[in-house]
Amino acid sequence: MYNFKNDYAEGAHPLILEQLFSSNLVQELGYGEDHYSKNAKEAIRGQINNPEAPIYFVSGGTQANLLVISHLLRPHEAVISAKTGHIYANETGAIEAIGHRIITVDSVNGKVTASDVAAVIAAHQLRPHVVKPKMLYISNSTELGTIYRKDELMALHAICRQHDLFLFLDGARLGHALTAKDNDLSLADIASYTDVFYIGGTKNGALLGEAIVFRTADLAEDFDYILKQKGALLAKGRILGIQFLTLFTDDLYFNLAKKANRCAQQIADRLIALGFSFLTPPQTNQLFPILPRKVIDQLLAKYAFYIWTEIDETHAAVRIITSWATDETLAANFCKDLEILSENERKR
Amino acid sequence: MYNFKNDYAEGAHPLILEQLFSSNLVQELGYGEDHYSKNAKEAIRGQINNPEAPIYFVSGGTQANLLVISHLLRPHEAVISAKTGHIYANETGAIEAIGHRIITVDSVNGKVTASDVAAVIAAHQLRPHVVKPKMLYISNSTELGTIYRKDELMALHAICRQHDLFLFLDGARLGHALTAKDNDLSLADIASYTDVFYIGGTKNGALLGEAIVFRTADLAEDFDYILKQKGALLAKGRILGIQFLTLFTDDLYFNLAKKANRCAQQIADRLIALGFSFLTPPQTNQLFPILPRKVIDQLLAKYAFYIWTEIDETHAAVRIITSWATDETLAANFCKDLEILSENERKR
Amino acid sequence: MYNFKNDYAEGAHPLILEQLFSSNLVQELGYGEDHYSKNAKEAIRGQINNPEAPIYFVSGGTQANLLVISHLLRPHEAVISAKTGHIYANETGAIEAIGHRIITVDSVNGKVTASDVAAVIAAHQLRPHVVKPKMLYISNSTELGTIYRKDELMALHAICRQHDLFLFLDGARLGHALTAKDNDLSLADIASYTDVFYIGGTKNGALLGEAIVFRTADLAEDFDYILKQKGALLAKGRILGIQFLTLFTDDLYFNLAKKANRCAQQIADRLIALGFSFLTPPQTNQLFPILPRKVIDQLLAKYAFYIWTEIDETHAAVRIITSWATDETLAANFCKDLEILSENERKR
Amino acid sequence: MYNFKNDYAEGAHPLILEQLFSSNLVQELGYGEDHYSKNAKEAIRGQINNPEAPIYFVSGGTQANLLVISHLLRPHEAVISAKTGHIYANETGAIEAIGHRIITVDSVNGKVTASDVAAVIAAHQLRPHVVKPKMLYISNSTELGTIYRKDELMALHAICRQHDLFLFLDGARLGHALTAKDNDLSLADIASYTDVFYIGGTKNGALLGEAIVFRTADLAEDFDYILKQKGALLAKGRILGIQFLTLFTDDLYFNLAKKANRCAQQIADRLIALGFSFLTPPQTNQLFPILPRKVIDQLLAKYAFYIWTEIDETHAAVRIITSWATDETLAANFCKDLEILSENERKR
Repeated sequence: MYNFKNDYAEGAHPLILEQLFSSNLVQELGYGEDHYSKNAKEAIRGQINNPEAPIYFVSGGTQANLLVISHLLRPHEAVISAKTGHIYANETGAIEAIGHRIITVDSVNGKVTASDVAAVIAAHQLRPHVVKPKMLYISNSTELGTIYRKDELMALHAICRQHDLFLFLDGARLGHALTAKDNDLSLADIASYTDVFYIGGTKNGALLGEAIVFRTADLAEDFDYILKQKGALLAKGRILGIQFLTLFTDDLYFNLAKKANRCAQQIADRLIALGFSFLTPPQTNQLFPILPRKVIDQLLAKYAFYIWTEIDETHAAVRIITSWATDETLAANFCKDLEILSENERKR
Repeated sequence: MYNFKNDYAEGAHPLILEQLFSSNLVQELGYGEDHYSKNAKEAIRGQINNPEAPIYFVSGGTQANLLVISHLLRPHEAVISAKTGHIYANETGAIEAIGHRIITVDSVNGKVTASDVAAVIAAHQLRPHVVKPKMLYISNSTELGTIYRKDELMALHAICRQHDLFLFLDGARLGHALTAKDNDLSLADIASYTDVFYIGGTKNGALLGEAIVFRTADLAEDFDYILKQKGALLAKGRILGIQFLTLFTDDLYFNLAKKANRCAQQIADRLIALGFSFLTPPQTNQLFPILPRKVIDQLLAKYAFYIWTEIDETHAAVRIITSWATDETLAANFCKDLEILSENERKR
Repeated sequence: MYNFKNDYAEGAHPLILEQLFSSNLVQELGYGEDHYSKNAKEAIRGQINNPEAPIYFVSGGTQANLLVISHLLRPHEAVISAKTGHIYANETGAIEAIGHRIITVDSVNGKVTASDVAAVIAAHQLRPHVVKPKMLYISNSTELGTIYRKDELMALHAICRQHDLFLFLDGARLGHALTAKDNDLSLADIASYTDVFYIGGTKNGALLGEAIVFRTADLAEDFDYILKQKGALLAKGRILGIQFLTLFTDDLYFNLAKKANRCAQQIADRLIALGFSFLTPPQTNQLFPILPRKVIDQLLAKYAFYIWTEIDETHAAVRIITSWATDETLAANFCKDLEILSENERKR
Repeated sequence: MYNFKNDYAEGAHPLILEQLFSSNLVQELGYGEDHYSKNAKEAIRGQINNPEAPIYFVSGGTQANLLVISHLLRPHEAVISAKTGHIYANETGAIEAIGHRIITVDSVNGKVTASDVAAVIAAHQLRPHVVKPKMLYISNSTELGTIYRKDELMALHAICRQHDLFLFLDGARLGHALTAKDNDLSLADIASYTDVFYIGGTKNGALLGEAIVFRTADLAEDFDYILKQKGALLAKGRILGIQFLTLFTDDLYFNLAKKANRCAQQIADRLIALGFSFLTPPQTNQLFPILPRKVIDQLLAKYAFYIWTEIDETHAAVRIITSWATDETLAANFCKDLEILSENERKR
């Protein structure tokens, strides 16, 4: 039973484990003051052309989201998100638990547009009886596998400036977005057009870890206190530093994402060739093909994946995820099985 | 410069790294549903004679504390702690940030007594103008290196039952407590006399990780939601499971703590022989000797440690911590240096 | 300029002011322990046939909502509401500020149906990654002036029992609901079919005040602490007690609501006669007629009211509210002006 | 049984009720936009020589405290208070419930000194493991009836500026402080030397109400949202406006406080003449005389008051409170009874 359910089914890329091994008995300061963390931050700052950018390493995405939002918003301020956004759909009310409303917008392909933002602003004018929109949260790649184009991000940046909103980008799968075939954004663009974003390690080769990057020191003021208060400051911060240092050495981070995308692309190409359509365009390592229920049922005997949403009585969209660790032979087998099953299905 | 500042200056015990390596490419379910986590929980349940105990693995102590307290207390309920308790002294208001007052008691040696608890209850009778004490938080070993005796824990258990308080034990250094020379408590005792406690991995051989153990299923109801909401549920839960499975195989957890204690004991014995006194009795891997300022200054040239508190104009108490990774030769050197320096000091 | 914007433009019904005067120098205990509060509670308990119902008086609706929800929900639990519900649309994120998500349902006429609730439950199964729906919040009358029928409330009661949800009814305008022409619910029914509800005083003759009524003592356990903690416990609780005692003497509460409804009915009848339609059926003291923009503009020169929502390029729905204090002559003038203006408009 | 337990046993000063009556049917805007509120704010601004000071009326002291603190502090910031401060001793954890630690200082007479503040700052240097002190909360008069002198307030102001702390003054009994015999502060001084303070109405002649005054518009930015979110924005804001307009017409506010103080002074003088001592110096309308237990027991048969604290086996300090409404004849009777009882006691 091979698992296409997610991109965190295995451990870490072997290079990371090797670095953990080789550094293991070196004594370091705790709480992120170690040399590995310092060097990893320098490596990231170099790639975004922002030598002063405050950077913090944390354990996971939900943690990163609640830390940043708790840090930047006052009690009456709200964050705008796609209804499919991770903070709304998958984090057990983490944002409300720290006191803030998420204002959702229905979206196509998991993406928020500048006009969505304008509509939210227009609908929140009855001060003080309504929350005050103060942040836009987007994910790249999105929870539906799609990516933002540079012009789209710039438009969001512009409307956020216009209405004095923070722009926060959840990059749990940022590597996959930035190495997608259709991508025209660089890591430095992401850093320029947002106020804060994070670089996801957990879903791209690390055991755990996300790197939160602020645009300016002002935006990060006292963030160290917030980190500690929310239980996010690891005593052995070195284990995050070592991982990000490894990922940002010799482009490992981007190479791993490329491999995941390439593997997904092969599956997508085969699906297209077989005439299947998709819930959202196949752009990164998350695919949402629409398949006949009967094919799905038979595939589930050999492969694990999620049924995402019903389409009609006989069809559903499923979610297939690849990663840096996906076995390419098994991915090819999956395609072959899919082909056989769908042909059988047609013959009936 | 050798570091006696804390017990998290190095990485993990090599056996743990080996297990991470050997399991690395096995596919597992995420979010703690992996086989390693299941097996690690079984191993712990076996040691506490409580086959139904709900167990959850989290990243660190502050996180464990805020999760448990947020889970068990209603908004008007408060937690009692020693003023030196980690939740009061070292966690940046994490407990208040989730809405609860910490009622502190001045304590001798970092420990809370049953009469302290009774006094707090007596002082909180002016309902509804005062908070309602509903939990007792203790640490074993304490933040001052001391340990609870069985009769002391039983007395706390009894008064908590009497006043309907939860008894929560922070075991960030539980291994060191249970392997101390003076200890008469077993892990099963800890599990019997508390409502919830945790077993600290971070300070005893793991890269990160604490195991939260509830006494009954009722006490843990819906704790999985709380874990996820507070950003504590790791996608790759396997990395916590693998570590605790390793620690609870062949008594590794206790053997590592014993080594740390033994090393501390050797230093303490030498200090006693040299005529020095201690802020609190040297019982575990945290020592608080009182030294002449001049000796301290010279030691700091070769060794890193914290000055804990001023005693008088010429003396201060310092904190010396050993761990499973402490180099015994360097610890012996430290003792030798200490002896020379203190003799020199006397001669003046 | 006569004000139809709301039902709180004047002070209190004169009988209430008289009671405040006549009791003024009697010494009473503070914090709701006064005799007036006790007697007012008895009066309400009598009307709901529940002699043990815990009752608390508070200052306003937002306060009542946040108190009840903070009291009954654990951190990961969410409340279901119509998107037009006061807690979602008009309270500045008060519920999120105490940590809870509001799950909204799109609704017809401001009402939630049992099938809405079932759909929310079905959509929140991915434990623990989603919030846990645990309460249904409804308003009667709703924010759109409509009311619940007995069969509708019973269906909501049944589905809440089935899924272990609390049913909480916001009765800021409960008097208007229970005295509406189409109403078939009694105050005792409201008390039977909900877990907690409140009786609004502010919008029906009081200076301020809402009476929160719990179905059982268990449901109200420690609510006094929550009241005090959220700043809702008035030192001079007598001023709430005196008002509710007056309102629940000789049916004043229901008579005032009847008067407001009657006045609204007269306006609605005239609007219907003139051929206008309504955004929602005119059932209580809040009317939402759809009028030509040109008529609206001219009316606004003499009368104050809110434009509620655009209908098309030439029409909008407005909100007209009457109250116990509405001047019936001026209401008749309003109807006359409306008739003249709309006839003029037609002639063009 | 005459009640000296508190200063909120009666209703409102008759002039206030008269104004409520005479304004009752005037239509006004809701939520504090009424003319009475505007005029009351102007009246207060005139007395503090700060024509731009943002002012907000709220229902009670706990509400005022939690609003201001929630508004001004970020999540990791803490407020310093005397251990006897109302926010610590009497508000059911309201401040912790909005996320902030109260750092208490042991105090003499309920007052905080500049050196107390310096000590707190010194003890919170281990960033980011400790909370960040960011506000000083004081009460004038204090919960023990004492008052701040101008030089004391100026010293607190100076140290708050030095350490970038907000200075917040709880004036629930500000009238009593400013009309005390020993007072050398004016209302304008209070406004100059604090960042925010409030003028208590509830304990000095109003039915309910406190007036929160900010020093600058910046300090109050978006406070209207916070007010609404915490359930503190009354629909009929007029009832607060009318009361403060009345209190700040013809010095009523200060005259009522003077009367309460004068009455307390008479009792205090008699107690001194009888040779009794006090827990804290008798300066305002709260007295804490130390009396023999036997005298206390007999007094309690005719008068209601609180036993404050035990002094020794035969003595306790009690709390006697007077107000604008205290019956001077009964106060004289109380003194007489006290004299007789204490003489009898001595004769035994």
